[in-house]
Amino acid sequence: MSLPELEQLAAEIRELILTTVSKNGGHLAPSLGTVELTLALYSVFDYDVDKIVWDVGHQAYAHKILTGRRDKFHTLRKFGGLAGFPKRSESPYDAFGVGHASTSISAALGLLIAEELQNKFGKVVAVIGDGALTGGEAFEALNHAGQLKKKLIVILNDNEMSIAKNVGALSEYLSEVRLAPQYQRAKRDFEAFVKNLPIGDKILQAAQSVRYGLKSAIVPQNIFEALGFTYIGPVDGHDIRAMKDIFSRVSVLDEPVLIHVHTTKGKGYAPAERLPEKFHGVGKFNKDTGEIAKKVAPPTYTEIFSKAIVDCARINKNIVAITAAMPSGTGLKNFAEKFPSRFFDVGIAEEHAVTLAAGMAAGGLRPVVAIYSTFIQRAYDQILHDVCLQNLPVIFCLDRAGIVGEDGATHHGVFDMAFLRTIPNINILAPKDENELRQMFFTAVEQDQPVAIRYPRGSGFGVEIVDKKLAWGKAEIVHKSVGAEAVILAVGSMVNVAVDAAKILNFPIDVINARFIKPLDTEILLRGAKLFVTIEEGALNGGFGAAVAEFLADKNISTPLIRFGIADEFVEHGTRAELLKLCGLTAEQIAEKIAEVRNGNCNCN
Amino acid sequence: MSLPELEQLAAEIRELILTTVSKNGGHLAPSLGTVELTLALYSVFDYDVDKIVWDVGHQAYAHKILTGRRDKFHTLRKFGGLAGFPKRSESPYDAFGVGHASTSISAALGLLIAEELQNKFGKVVAVIGDGALTGGEAFEALNHAGQLKKKLIVILNDNEMSIAKNVGALSEYLSEVRLAPQYQRAKRDFEAFVKNLPIGDKILQAAQSVRYGLKSAIVPQNIFEALGFTYIGPVDGHDIRAMKDIFSRVSVLDEPVLIHVHTTKGKGYAPAERLPEKFHGVGKFNKDTGEIAKKVAPPTYTEIFSKAIVDCARINKNIVAITAAMPSGTGLKNFAEKFPSRFFDVGIAEEHAVTLAAGMAAGGLRPVVAIYSTFIQRAYDQILHDVCLQNLPVIFCLDRAGIVGEDGATHHGVFDMAFLRTIPNINILAPKDENELRQMFFTAVEQDQPVAIRYPRGSGFGVEIVDKKLAWGKAEIVHKSVGAEAVILAVGSMVNVAVDAAKILNFPIDVINARFIKPLDTEILLRGAKLFVTIEEGALNGGFGAAVAEFLADKNISTPLIRFGIADEFVEHGTRAELLKLCGLTAEQIAEKIAEVRNGNCNCN
Repeated sequence: MSLPELEQLAAEIRELILTTVSKNGGHLAPSLGTVELTLALYSVFDYDVDKIVWDVGHQAYAHKILTGRRDKFHTLRKFGGLAGFPKRSESPYDAFGVGHASTSISAALGLLIAEELQNKFGKVVAVIGDGALTGGEAFEALNHAGQLKKKLIVILNDNEMSIAKNVGALSEYLSEVRLAPQYQRAKRDFEAFVKNLPIGDKILQAAQSVRYGLKSAIVPQNIFEALGFTYIGPVDGHDIRAMKDIFSRVSVLDEPVLIHVHTTKGKGYAPAERLPEKFHGVGKFNKDTGEIAKKVAPPTYTEIFSKAIVDCARINKNIVAITAAMPSGTGLKNFAEKFPSRFFDVGIAEEHAVTLAAGMAAGGLRPVVAIYSTFIQRAYDQILHDVCLQNLPVIFCLDRAGIVGEDGATHHGVFDMAFLRTIPNINILAPKDENELRQMFFTAVEQDQPVAIRYPRGSGFGVEIVDKKLAWGKAEIVHKSVGAEAVILAVGSMVNVAVDAAKILNFPIDVINARFIKPLDTEILLRGAKLFVTIEEGALNGGFGAAVAEFLADKNISTPLIRFGIADEFVEHGTRAELLKLCGLTAEQIAEKIAEVRNGNCNCN
Repeated sequence: MSLPELEQLAAEIRELILTTVSKNGGHLAPSLGTVELTLALYSVFDYDVDKIVWDVGHQAYAHKILTGRRDKFHTLRKFGGLAGFPKRSESPYDAFGVGHASTSISAALGLLIAEELQNKFGKVVAVIGDGALTGGEAFEALNHAGQLKKKLIVILNDNEMSIAKNVGALSEYLSEVRLAPQYQRAKRDFEAFVKNLPIGDKILQAAQSVRYGLKSAIVPQNIFEALGFTYIGPVDGHDIRAMKDIFSRVSVLDEPVLIHVHTTKGKGYAPAERLPEKFHGVGKFNKDTGEIAKKVAPPTYTEIFSKAIVDCARINKNIVAITAAMPSGTGLKNFAEKFPSRFFDVGIAEEHAVTLAAGMAAGGLRPVVAIYSTFIQRAYDQILHDVCLQNLPVIFCLDRAGIVGEDGATHHGVFDMAFLRTIPNINILAPKDENELRQMFFTAVEQDQPVAIRYPRGSGFGVEIVDKKLAWGKAEIVHKSVGAEAVILAVGSMVNVAVDAAKILNFPIDVINARFIKPLDTEILLRGAKLFVTIEEGALNGGFGAAVAEFLADKNISTPLIRFGIADEFVEHGTRAELLKLCGLTAEQIAEKIAEVRNGNCNCN
């Protein structure tokens, strides 16, 4: 394709992305930023032979469109439709499934080694943003790849953002590099200048004795070169011709290369260029005006947390807050404005976030770590080894717990209860509504031990906010019937569903709001019942219902138990409602199954 | 203290460490390497006010001796005695508990922020080895600290080793830096030389236009400076005077500083200097000869794995092996010698190790990741998100699963079954003896899905090795009684213990070797019993017994179940035998409790 043809195609792709995302929602700004980059890549690399790994994958819409999915693109993020991220089961051109950040260099290196050992010759490219580069795994991979000296191509897609403005010393370093776009040429000029001096050789000789001396004036001793990569850049990431030229020349090199590409997030769509954070991941919006559709809805859990931590921090000076590149998403932006010296955005670096909090707690502070449930998986060892083993009072606020909807399998926060519950000393709470989230937060702050509070994505119920502390480790009876024939213990988002299910069933049922996944309120269980039912928006294996099953077994209580939750499978993407139904977690489905079991005509398990 | 006094003290400390470790075993070489460093630190910093965080902590024996534990040092690593690592509950001078690598900079930054926000003035120092520096979390922390510009002091204890020879591009970079010990002076000379030239100013002017040009000849643009740290070094880590001098000058700076200290692992004890890997963590040895006490014992599980993977790799060309800085400990050294192009030591970088394996598997290889159970906790998210979500055939060989003994709470591999079992698509196996480990490995290699095999530290039973494949998902009956009144399902190391317990009890019992923690052999459970018993060397919360409890509940099977395993607490250090007894996992204890339950006079739960 000629350059004008490529530019025409770029415009078409951009239009398709814009139109689709304005209807379906999605990762607009990242994907608009990489249209030219994607075209340049596929002009040089052969997608039937070569492999491209997109870090996170939220920038890969153009890739999907160019690799046979143009016609299906309108189904993006819809139940049964295209996924929002590259996915091996969706297309052979998705070399590696992604969703969480900082994995691409590791995966690409693995793919490259596989090519080599099998005597194939596919080239492998990792495309990683400057945000994802702050994740430690990316550094581990650079360090290893740099030593192996294999021909791995890493494209640093530098848009100065993760979701929010990027942070970290490395980010400042990159902007220094960007500020000198002419430095390659200047270097050549300088070298020529010195050489042409009468004593030029003498200067160069003197410089020889200085490692990291003049040598650096010729070969820039930059951070990527220190890690064994040849560094090229910065290149304008919207100049297809320039990128094609560099990619062609690099594709024949036999060494690890990092190409620093400078792109604009939201490129080509003014509202997104102006507000890239808002248009990073976005719901429906008016394409013409850039106006984002607003639902009239009660406050979200995030908003309630946002206010709770600020109110609490006014009273308790020891409260500090930590997030990993999600100041808006977690609701900490407000806290950051009010208490800038007590707020820490560490970038995409969940491991560091948690150990940092452990250090703060060891030093006498009361740190609150706000990270989405799915991303806290990255810090399992730090929660165990740094926080819980030392029984330090860190509070984890796990937003987006449970089914998150359109982001799909990589993003559902359905494992937290199961993997946290195995760790000694931790307490795990889940509120039934937004009011209880506030109460739990205020209660948690007074505990001298680790606490995790998990709460769902989206709006609460618009309930009244009443400040009060909760009894530690105690469940709440929310629906009491005389002569109850079953007791439902429901967790968090499932409490109201359980009440609805109880109402559908025409026999007396008690509904308990568990509040605590750990410690379990065993008194409730010891009171006995004819039938116990547990309902949780989380993995059944090892989750809340499992804890109940363990307790009943240990106490030799033979009351039947029905456990509702997420089966031992990954859940795909779709609306939250569609997916909860898929998982059998609607009030109707729950009521039906309970009735069947009670009537003895169920072989549901 | 005068310099001669400090040097005398160093000699005494070194002798105490040597004598104690030769009797108790322990981390000899790392701790011998830091004697002078520790003395220099405590000459400048005040341990009542300032805080030192020792990464991993295996180099902190001199620290323990100097902070009030000289008299107790003979109890090192013994049950009830001093721990092998710094531990907050042991001493107020242990600012932060450690064990796993790469956490010190994060924790130290947290402690420093806590000092500042509480208007205290303690200085905070992190001491991190070049090995631990390859862990991504350390990079995340440097990146954050470099941006915050707080007066954090990081001491890079560069001994060119993790446990084994250090790997990674960064390690090569550090050796380049070390090879130029005079480079600071040379730089000054060069600068003077250029300035004194008639056109010196012109050269400097020209250089101004070149960022990373001559500027680098004056201010070395090294990797730590790129991350916002002032870099000082390298310094001889056995020269107390030089270190005191630098630490004093650095302690008044108001910025992040990294001091590069070059030490010799095993310093002062010839056998350890010669064989630092062997003397990294060592059992009893003869202090005079350096001869390590050898037990006559059957082959270890590690040795059996070592041979199995080599035998398997000869047949299957797609087998590749990955370890994270543990080529000897995991038994992969042999594989590395035989198949160098198929072996990958990624350094202390468990996250990268797992995603790398996922990439290799996606590319058609059959990667084997050999990492200790406790360290695989670092890669929980990568196992879930990169391997299992894509159902890629990666084999995890988890050595040191269960109670590891003297290394204590940070190192026991007791959570693996619980946290892995929550992940869809994974299979988890545990062999009852070393022969079964080999059989499981050969069976696992043929599966087209993720498999984890967990096996204990130490020797097997000296059983005969018989090559055969195992039926997938099937348990094995190891002890069958007519009219069995109880069925014990035991996992891995507990199978022989279960058989012994059955022999103690005077009623008929069946003993099942579970083999599979996941998938569970439900047929065995569906056959029914009067009493089920599960025994596992792992966390009860969410573990194997929990899986059985879940299944029985889901099937509404009301057979009583007794679960033996590790309670919801961290287990301290001691011999494996002492700790298994502490956990109630001896045959006698198990038999006694089963008898009590059967006789109905137990309120054990």
